[in-house]
Amino acid sequence: MKSYPEMNKEELLEERAALQDAYKTEEAKGLSLNMARGKPGRSQLELAMPMLDVFNSHSDMNTLLGNDTRNYGDLDGIGECRRLMADMMEVEKDNVIVCGNSSLNIMYDTVARSMDFGVCGSTPWHKLENVKFLCPVPGYDRHFAITELFGIEMIPIAMNDNGPDMDQVEAYVNSDPAVKGIWCVPKYSNPTGISYSDEVVRRFAALKPAAEDFRIYWDNAYCIHHLYEDTQDTILNILEECTKAGNPDIVYIFASTSKISFPGSGVSAIAASEKNLDYILSKMTVQTIGHDKINQLRHVRFFKDIDGLKLHMKKHAELLRPKFEAVLTELDNELEGLGIGSWIKPRGGYFISFNALPGTAKRIVGMCKDLGVIMTGAGATYPYHNDPQDSNIRIAPSFPTPEEMSEAAKVFVLCVKLASVEKLLQDME
Amino acid sequence: MKSYPEMNKEELLEERAALQDAYKTEEAKGLSLNMARGKPGRSQLELAMPMLDVFNSHSDMNTLLGNDTRNYGDLDGIGECRRLMADMMEVEKDNVIVCGNSSLNIMYDTVARSMDFGVCGSTPWHKLENVKFLCPVPGYDRHFAITELFGIEMIPIAMNDNGPDMDQVEAYVNSDPAVKGIWCVPKYSNPTGISYSDEVVRRFAALKPAAEDFRIYWDNAYCIHHLYEDTQDTILNILEECTKAGNPDIVYIFASTSKISFPGSGVSAIAASEKNLDYILSKMTVQTIGHDKINQLRHVRFFKDIDGLKLHMKKHAELLRPKFEAVLTELDNELEGLGIGSWIKPRGGYFISFNALPGTAKRIVGMCKDLGVIMTGAGATYPYHNDPQDSNIRIAPSFPTPEEMSEAAKVFVLCVKLASVEKLLQDME
Repeated sequence: MKSYPEMNKEELLEERAALQDAYKTEEAKGLSLNMARGKPGRSQLELAMPMLDVFNSHSDMNTLLGNDTRNYGDLDGIGECRRLMADMMEVEKDNVIVCGNSSLNIMYDTVARSMDFGVCGSTPWHKLENVKFLCPVPGYDRHFAITELFGIEMIPIAMNDNGPDMDQVEAYVNSDPAVKGIWCVPKYSNPTGISYSDEVVRRFAALKPAAEDFRIYWDNAYCIHHLYEDTQDTILNILEECTKAGNPDIVYIFASTSKISFPGSGVSAIAASEKNLDYILSKMTVQTIGHDKINQLRHVRFFKDIDGLKLHMKKHAELLRPKFEAVLTELDNELEGLGIGSWIKPRGGYFISFNALPGTAKRIVGMCKDLGVIMTGAGATYPYHNDPQDSNIRIAPSFPTPEEMSEAAKVFVLCVKLASVEKLLQDME
Repeated sequence: MKSYPEMNKEELLEERAALQDAYKTEEAKGLSLNMARGKPGRSQLELAMPMLDVFNSHSDMNTLLGNDTRNYGDLDGIGECRRLMADMMEVEKDNVIVCGNSSLNIMYDTVARSMDFGVCGSTPWHKLENVKFLCPVPGYDRHFAITELFGIEMIPIAMNDNGPDMDQVEAYVNSDPAVKGIWCVPKYSNPTGISYSDEVVRRFAALKPAAEDFRIYWDNAYCIHHLYEDTQDTILNILEECTKAGNPDIVYIFASTSKISFPGSGVSAIAASEKNLDYILSKMTVQTIGHDKINQLRHVRFFKDIDGLKLHMKKHAELLRPKFEAVLTELDNELEGLGIGSWIKPRGGYFISFNALPGTAKRIVGMCKDLGVIMTGAGATYPYHNDPQDSNIRIAPSFPTPEEMSEAAKVFVLCVKLASVEKLLQDME
C-alpha cells in the first residue's frame, strides 16, 4: 500500500470514504474504554492482595530495632523499609528517607520547600525574579503541573532516543542561574519509554550549574518496571555518578511502590546526599511527626527484600505485556508504512508515545473520545499543555483488559488514519 | 502546713534540707521515665489491633459507591470515611476532605498554601510585608513551630478558663489586616485541658476580620477524647455558628484518629465551607493523586460509625484515667496549699498544665531531667519557646504506665518544691 503522503487527492478521498464507513461502524458499538492514565489494572492489584494477610491482631509490630511502628517516631522511615527502598533505588540506606503514599507529593513538597525556604541555605525562590525548570518533552504532565502552579517558567528540551538533548541542557544549566531544576524520568521514560544512556547520565552528573540551588529531579518511577525478562534497560546510578563527578548534592531521586503494591496505599521515598536529606528533614520535622510506619512494615514483611520486589514485578510484566502488545500489534499492522505516525516499542514503564502528523493530535484524541475511547489529552505531555506541533499522544495500556485494549487500539488507529487523511486533504486546498 | 511564701528564711532553709535529702534518695534510684509528649501508651495501641484483622487477601476492597480503594481516585477521600470523620467533627459530609495520616501535616500544608498562593484568591502571604497569627498561650508547640518556620509573627493571647481572651482576639482580628489566623485547640485544650465556652465560640463566629484571608485554625484534636463518662465537655459547632453569623468561610477545622487508632497510621481530615474546600482541592490535585484509601476503608470497616468510635474511646479513657489521676493525686497531696503552683483537673485530652512560681519552670524541668524524668521543655508551650513568666509546664501522662506515672509525679512534685524553696530564698537575698 502507498503511504498516505504519497497519495493524490483522488486516492485520499477514496481512503477517506472507506475510513468514514469504518468510523460509523465503530460509532454504533458505543464503546466506553479509558486509556488516559497510567493506572494499574484490576489483575495487577490482585497480585498484592496477600499483603493484607501479613498482619493480624496478634502481629509483632516492632521494627528490627525494637521501635513500635504503631506509635509516633522514625520521621525518616523505619530502618528495614529504608533498606528495601534503597535497594530498589540502588543507593545506600543512609541516603534514603521513606515518606508517605505518594512520590508526587514528595516532589511537590520539595518544590514548595524550595519556594518557601530555598535549598540548603539559598535564597527562597519566591524572592527571586525568575525561576526556571527545564522540561524534556514529551514528559510527565503531573511534573509540569507542579512547576506551573508555582509560577516557575518551563523551558521545553528535546528528548532524543537516549535521553534529553544534553547540549541544550548543559547550555541552560551551566549558564543561567535562574535555572533551578530539570524534570527527568530516566528509565522507561514517561511517555516515550526510552531510558537514558550512560553518556547522558554522566553528562547530567558532570553539570556545572550556574545556580548553587539547581537540582536534578530524577523521578525513577519505573526503576524495576520491566515488561520483558530478557531485554531489560539498566541505567547508571545517578547519585554515584554525581558523587564521582564532585557533585553529590545536585540530584534528588524519587520512587514509590504505587505501581508495585497499591496506587495510593504504597510507600514513597526520596534519595539524596546527606546534606540534602538533613536540610529536608529540618523542615519535614515541622510538617509532620512521621509517616505511616505500619504500612512501611507491611511492605517489608510482604516483599521481604529486593528479590521479592523483583519477583513481584515479573508477575506485573506478565499482565502488562499482552496489553502493550495489543496496542503495538495494531500500530504495526495498521500504520506501518503509512507515513502518518511513529512510535517506540518500550521495554518497560507504563506508556507508548505516539507521534502523529503535525496538527492532528488534538483531532485524533477528540475522535477517539467521540467513539468512547478516552486518551490522555493531546498536549498534556508538554508544559502549559502546549505541544507546538500538535503531534504527541500518550497511550496508557495498563488499565483496560487485553481484549479491551485491542478494541481501543483499533479505534485509535482508525482515528489516526482518518485525521491524517483529512489533514492531508486540507493541506492540498 | 504553712504555704512556702509564708515561711521565713529559717523555715525555708529547714525545708530545703529535707527536700535535698529526698532529692538524693530519688537520684539514687536512677529512673528513666518520659512524660514529654502526648504519646499513647502501649495498652492504648493494643485496643486498635483488631483493626488489622478487618482485611485479608480475599476482602472486598470497594467503597459503597463501587470505587476500588486499591487504585487511584477519590482525591477528597472515600465517601464512607468522609461520613465517619464528619460525624466525629460534627459537620456535614460535604464539608469534609479526608487526607493522609496527619492533621498536623494538613495544617502545615494549609499555611504553606496560603504563603504560596493566598487564600481563595487573596494575595499570597509571602508577598506581604507582615503576616501575623494569634497564639493563645500556653498552647501547642507544634502549631507555633509551623508559623515560626514560615516567619509569621506570633502574638500571644491570654488563655482564660473558658478559652482565649476574646477581647484581645477581637481587638487584633477586627482591626489589623496583617492578622491572618489564630491557633485554637477548642476542646480539652493543649495543654490547659479547658474547653471553650459557648460564648467564646459565638464570639469567634462573629469576628469581623480586617483581613479577607483571616481564618480560625480550629484544631479539634481531642473532640471525642473524654476521660470520664459522666462529666464530658461539649463545645458549640464552630462551622454552624460561623454560618449563622454570616461568616461561613472563616474557619478550618482539623481532626484525626491519631489518638484513636494508631499515631502515624490513622486518618486525618479538614472540614470547612464548600468555598474553602474547593480552593484547597484546586491545589491539592496538583500535590497528590490521592491519599491512602485502603486505610480509610480499614477505619470505616473497623469502627463502622460514630458510635463505634465513641465506644472505642471509652476504652481509651479507662486506660488514661488512672494515669491522669496518679499525677493529680500527687499534685493534690503534695502541693495543695503550698502556694507554689496551680493546675486544672482536665476532663479529657492528653495534658495537665502546671503553673509554677514565676521563674522556676526551667529549673524544675532541669531537675526532673537530672532525676531521669523527661518533661516537655519549659517554654515549649509559648511562641518562640519564650514563656515570659518561666512558669508553665506541660505534663503528658499518657505514655508511662500508671505505676511509672505515679513514680514520675513524685519526682515532679519534689522538684517543684525544691525549686520553689530555692527561688524564695534567692528572692530574700
